[in-house]
Amino acid sequence: MKKRVAISVGDLNGIGIELALRNHKEVKDLVEPLYIIDKDMLEQVSKLLSIDIPKDFKTISPNTHYFKIKAGVIDAKSGAYSFASFKKGVELCKENSVDAICTLPIHKKAWEEAKIAYKGHTDALRDFFKKEAIMMLGSPKMYVGLYTEHIPLKDVPKAIDEQRLFQFFIDFYRETKAKEIAVLGLNPHAGDYGVLGNEESTIERSIVRANEYLPNSPFLGPLVPDIAFTPTLRDRFKYYIAMYHDQGLIPLKALYFDESINVSLNLPILRTSVDHGTAFDIAYKGKYLNKKSYINAIKYITSTTN
Amino acid sequence: MKKRVAISVGDLNGIGIELALRNHKEVKDLVEPLYIIDKDMLEQVSKLLSIDIPKDFKTISPNTHYFKIKAGVIDAKSGAYSFASFKKGVELCKENSVDAICTLPIHKKAWEEAKIAYKGHTDALRDFFKKEAIMMLGSPKMYVGLYTEHIPLKDVPKAIDEQRLFQFFIDFYRETKAKEIAVLGLNPHAGDYGVLGNEESTIERSIVRANEYLPNSPFLGPLVPDIAFTPTLRDRFKYYIAMYHDQGLIPLKALYFDESINVSLNLPILRTSVDHGTAFDIAYKGKYLNKKSYINAIKYITSTTN
Repeated sequence: MKKRVAISVGDLNGIGIELALRNHKEVKDLVEPLYIIDKDMLEQVSKLLSIDIPKDFKTISPNTHYFKIKAGVIDAKSGAYSFASFKKGVELCKENSVDAICTLPIHKKAWEEAKIAYKGHTDALRDFFKKEAIMMLGSPKMYVGLYTEHIPLKDVPKAIDEQRLFQFFIDFYRETKAKEIAVLGLNPHAGDYGVLGNEESTIERSIVRANEYLPNSPFLGPLVPDIAFTPTLRDRFKYYIAMYHDQGLIPLKALYFDESINVSLNLPILRTSVDHGTAFDIAYKGKYLNKKSYINAIKYITSTTN
Repeated sequence: MKKRVAISVGDLNGIGIELALRNHKEVKDLVEPLYIIDKDMLEQVSKLLSIDIPKDFKTISPNTHYFKIKAGVIDAKSGAYSFASFKKGVELCKENSVDAICTLPIHKKAWEEAKIAYKGHTDALRDFFKKEAIMMLGSPKMYVGLYTEHIPLKDVPKAIDEQRLFQFFIDFYRETKAKEIAVLGLNPHAGDYGVLGNEESTIERSIVRANEYLPNSPFLGPLVPDIAFTPTLRDRFKYYIAMYHDQGLIPLKALYFDESINVSLNLPILRTSVDHGTAFDIAYKGKYLNKKSYINAIKYITSTTN
């Protein structure tokens, strides 16, 4: 049976809703989509884009206010609408009216102007559920879980903590059920036996503990970071855990830039997202929109057993 | 006129000399190679590999001792020989008998067993010339200069220093003469206007100073690290400066693993090297040897104006 997926429409001044309309047929073949947008807003979009609304384009209202779309503009009203659409989607997940939510891109500055207290989707989800969501980015060929995310690089080494790593590993495994998970070291050459840093000994202890705790010893590492993403190791591993933001996202975006997605793990609900922004510069201009990230975000939902 | 290139043969228990023999014809079409190996050692190699020595395989003695080759073995005698071959090549450069040196891989442990006080080629070059060599790695499509190299990650943020960066930029430009050089930020999102770290303000000041000092403002940045290596920016930039080892080498090796080379800049001599090791596991076994890195290391020499 097809999964039911709430699709929050993102900032309506951006490209999200156009992506949804143009790719409805393909998405509908994969899941049962429920778009969180009012009919009058959708009609406005349809006119602006000169795209007919598909007959089976099932919608639900985010219970918020009508506003006039201004293509490519940062606007408080559009920010408020995108937040309402997202919030409604999360509620639908919580009450099991849908199986997952896929979020289209919001504009952070528009949220700020709408006085929304969150920096973005992940930040909001953490607050809604009071749980440490795990941020995983990836493409169907390679997923990277981020042990630390949006913190200065100088704070990363102190964040390498045996217990916290152990918990992260267990949570990551529970969500992905991956047979093999590559854990990266922190330092060049993974510390070169302590000569170039010793955080790897902490990482290694956490790996050993997690492997003892779990049935099938899924974790391997700490791997030498600049070797971990070479073709041979990429063929072997689909799941990686990076110690810091750029360690995981530099190779992911170098290799799979236009197809990567964002997944929030370790929450009571499953949320996937495109890994691009609102693209205000090309919104409502009839330009080519790359659908890969959106389709992959939908496909990820179909691939999980939750 | 073809450049004259000294080729130090590396650890003779490894694959270096086989690479040299098998690719002599191609290398000779690019440069005038002078191999630093004794005739009796070369004959030993030739017998072991069942490869005839090409008639125009010009050699010069490293003035050291004969030893018996043991394929794939870490050995003090082989370590000493590889060091002598390298040292002789550097001398030939210094006295202008050749225009550059291309080094084949040595084994660091064999150097250690031979009581050689250096960790590797670059380390030795710094001592020979009492100068801060710049380590640049790359492929013909992308070169990355490393502002910091083999230091623990926790020491990287403190190494971001305005004057030292300025000097590094000037030196890097003098050696590469690149029209555009992309300078990476240190933190995720290049600090996001200071929210995720503020080392970028130091990097930016150094860029401004270097651009004012040089005729054509070659430096751009600090770039957002995880965006810098996506296809659009790779099309634009051939030269990058990374703040730390893995920031540059993770994307380089993910994208161009088997063709990348190592270049020592900012020295009185030009040295290039393959970016792989001695591959003891396949030495003298008649296995396929990838020549890309070796040929690129030779080609880099032909491309410079020095």
